[in-house]
Amino acid sequence: MENELISTEKLEQLIIERKVKEIRNIFEVVPTIDIAEACDDFEDVSHLVFIFKFVKSEYTADLFTELSNDTKEKLIQTMSDSELANILESQFTDDLVDDLEDLPANLVTRVLRNVSKEKREVINKLLNYKENTAGSIMTTEFLVLLESLTADEAIRKIRREGKTKETIYTIFIIDSKRNLVGTLDLDDLIFAKADEIISDIMNRDYVTTTIGADQEEVANLIKRYDLNAIAVLNNENRLIGLITVDDIVDVIEQEATEDMTKMAGVAPLDNSYLETNVFRMALKCAPWLMVLLVLGTFSSMILSKFETTLSALPILVPFVTVLMDTGGNAGGQTTTLMVRGLAVQEFGPKDYFKILWKEMRVALVTGLMVCVFAALWFLFEMYVGIIGFDGADLNSGVPLVGGELFVARLSISLLVSGTLLLGILVAKFVGTSLPMLVAAFKKDPALISSPFVTTIVDVCSLLIYIGLATIVFNTILG
Amino acid sequence: MENELISTEKLEQLIIERKVKEIRNIFEVVPTIDIAEACDDFEDVSHLVFIFKFVKSEYTADLFTELSNDTKEKLIQTMSDSELANILESQFTDDLVDDLEDLPANLVTRVLRNVSKEKREVINKLLNYKENTAGSIMTTEFLVLLESLTADEAIRKIRREGKTKETIYTIFIIDSKRNLVGTLDLDDLIFAKADEIISDIMNRDYVTTTIGADQEEVANLIKRYDLNAIAVLNNENRLIGLITVDDIVDVIEQEATEDMTKMAGVAPLDNSYLETNVFRMALKCAPWLMVLLVLGTFSSMILSKFETTLSALPILVPFVTVLMDTGGNAGGQTTTLMVRGLAVQEFGPKDYFKILWKEMRVALVTGLMVCVFAALWFLFEMYVGIIGFDGADLNSGVPLVGGELFVARLSISLLVSGTLLLGILVAKFVGTSLPMLVAAFKKDPALISSPFVTTIVDVCSLLIYIGLATIVFNTILG
Repeated sequence: MENELISTEKLEQLIIERKVKEIRNIFEVVPTIDIAEACDDFEDVSHLVFIFKFVKSEYTADLFTELSNDTKEKLIQTMSDSELANILESQFTDDLVDDLEDLPANLVTRVLRNVSKEKREVINKLLNYKENTAGSIMTTEFLVLLESLTADEAIRKIRREGKTKETIYTIFIIDSKRNLVGTLDLDDLIFAKADEIISDIMNRDYVTTTIGADQEEVANLIKRYDLNAIAVLNNENRLIGLITVDDIVDVIEQEATEDMTKMAGVAPLDNSYLETNVFRMALKCAPWLMVLLVLGTFSSMILSKFETTLSALPILVPFVTVLMDTGGNAGGQTTTLMVRGLAVQEFGPKDYFKILWKEMRVALVTGLMVCVFAALWFLFEMYVGIIGFDGADLNSGVPLVGGELFVARLSISLLVSGTLLLGILVAKFVGTSLPMLVAAFKKDPALISSPFVTTIVDVCSLLIYIGLATIVFNTILG
Repeated sequence: MENELISTEKLEQLIIERKVKEIRNIFEVVPTIDIAEACDDFEDVSHLVFIFKFVKSEYTADLFTELSNDTKEKLIQTMSDSELANILESQFTDDLVDDLEDLPANLVTRVLRNVSKEKREVINKLLNYKENTAGSIMTTEFLVLLESLTADEAIRKIRREGKTKETIYTIFIIDSKRNLVGTLDLDDLIFAKADEIISDIMNRDYVTTTIGADQEEVANLIKRYDLNAIAVLNNENRLIGLITVDDIVDVIEQEATEDMTKMAGVAPLDNSYLETNVFRMALKCAPWLMVLLVLGTFSSMILSKFETTLSALPILVPFVTVLMDTGGNAGGQTTTLMVRGLAVQEFGPKDYFKILWKEMRVALVTGLMVCVFAALWFLFEMYVGIIGFDGADLNSGVPLVGGELFVARLSISLLVSGTLLLGILVAKFVGTSLPMLVAAFKKDPALISSPFVTTIVDVCSLLIYIGLATIVFNTILG
């Protein structure tokens, strides 16, 4: 019941002392994942072989699934063919396929050589479905019942055949032509009278998905319809698999992780963070940094082209960072809200104008708040001396004083905060439009990373800034 | 089976024509959520009252849960007390509590007046649990069985009592003193022989949580142990509730959304995006922009203090944007990986040094790649004229040519790309350390938003940049 019930040391000790009974007892009272994590830290993989030899296969099948990839590899290399075959036969096919996807090719060959012919065929088929599709996460071990059975017959059939199935909580109901006609929840069956006919108690309002569907789509269906399991149909509309809600829990988490890292400009990891080595990690991070660096050239270009304006009015330079940061931050906020809203299907590309209208109003209110705050803050900065500006006359170099200095400082402050307001409007416009545009083309909106939006907004903010500066200072000072 | 089976217009038509049989049939074949969405768009809420009057309560209870908050409010205002009481009695308490949390106070009072006394007591209790804790998402309608029953007796008891329970797929087993001693999966019960004793077939390796536990923690337990449902214990270790995996699916999604928006500097929304109005949305966005604006002052300060250096070497200015962007982007990458890894418990604060060591090596490899690429790119920019730099002598103003010009451009390029390398190291250091630090203090690491890290890294990058520039140009040009 408590994680502290098991530790690597304790387990190793029991194995060294050959205390088979105590080890078996641990499997009764400690969740398998906790035992697996203890086993992952074994110094000597032969300890693990010992466990697989002396513990019932109904436990070790789960244990194998929960081990880390490293440990699995070591274990397979150490075991004899017959020991391996033993473990493999007791595993669910979908778990086995997941394992195989992460193993090196030579071990995959060895595994495939050691499973029964039927299982091998199923595995090969499942391995061929594209990653992240319904086909790749479904199991083929599901239960079907004929709609003409009585509740009592159904229960007897489940008792006979259900043990090797992934779930018996959702049962698929077919007609005599083997077409899917409904689903049956086990609880409805339990509550039914013995002679009730399945077709009278099954759900006819079931939903299905297809093998090629994206796993995120499947997750959205299961969530929306609150399903325990969903039927997977092939292109001929035949029932070929099943996906359960607990597979989906992992998918939801994976997809969220993928969206988050993509949006931060990290290419999706093939494995978990800890299992990705340093060099591979760098390869996931560096390319986007380079792309963004090249895109950032436009900002540099603008600053370079307006070098004369900037050296004539060096006070403009310190505010460049604030403008860029705020624009980027505002863009990142909207981009994130859009990408997430699209991912959880709260809205779609068809809602673009509705959402844009909302975001532009949000941008205006946000922009005005920030603008007023910023105008006061910038004045404060200049008066306190955080940013030095005495408004010295451009030609004579004589510092301004009193009312004239105030006007000069106020102009600067209004110029920068006005740019902020416009920048926020641009940022929220770009942040709304780009993810929506990408989604409209059926691509993943998370491709639009926040840094990408930032880079675009930077360019716009700088252009607005220098444009406004030129107008203001030509009018006031010129 | 298909969403197209139902539309608002069609449903309204049927209601106007009083076609009760057809309406009932729709509830047989169309998933409730689809019907609820069609009902949300009704012009006239009395149509909805008609449905609640003529469709079986086993369907309308679900329908009520799935309606939007707006529609629920309208409906409650329109219905008589007895109609309302009817709907409410058939609802699961946890759904009802969720509804009440979103309703205005006067309607809550009306709802509470119209449920049975026992239900009201339970609701009041549940409403008092802090939001986002196990207590606030659990249901109290769970099934307990005595460990001494036989399988057959257990099934009979389930048939008698199970219908009003949230789930019968996971059943809690108690001893004669009413202490929790195990859990029983319904499938194990189905497969058991009629006279087997529950205590022999139940799981003893169950996990539990407590009412005060954060819902994210509960989600992590359910995921880790692949549970259908988890027992919730009160402070005296007594079983008081149950949380099922489908409640957790929503939690996982909510928590991911919250983390993502927090990290983008948006305060967590109380409702969904679409249900949050423009002004409230602006209030979620503006504060962080202001805070970051104030923090950004440090960057402005640095640029302002080194005004003389920058006006002497205006070529340094255009690169400021690239330095800031790249540092911010690299920091955002690491921050996101850390926040996510901590959220899904792939690692914890105790792994800090291990992770930091990894990230610093990633930073070095990433930094070197970006640095080499950037050095070449900057040279290219200057030779192509994207960024104008003729290396004119500071005093005489005579442009450099040939080898001297190349050396000058190379120095600039190496200076900037060197700063990039150091900036990336700092960014990954800050991006690793801050979320870990926050997690170590048991606070939500997503509080460390990427923009926050960016702002810190900006300051460091600028200091490095101007520091290096001073050294390089004092040596080479000085």
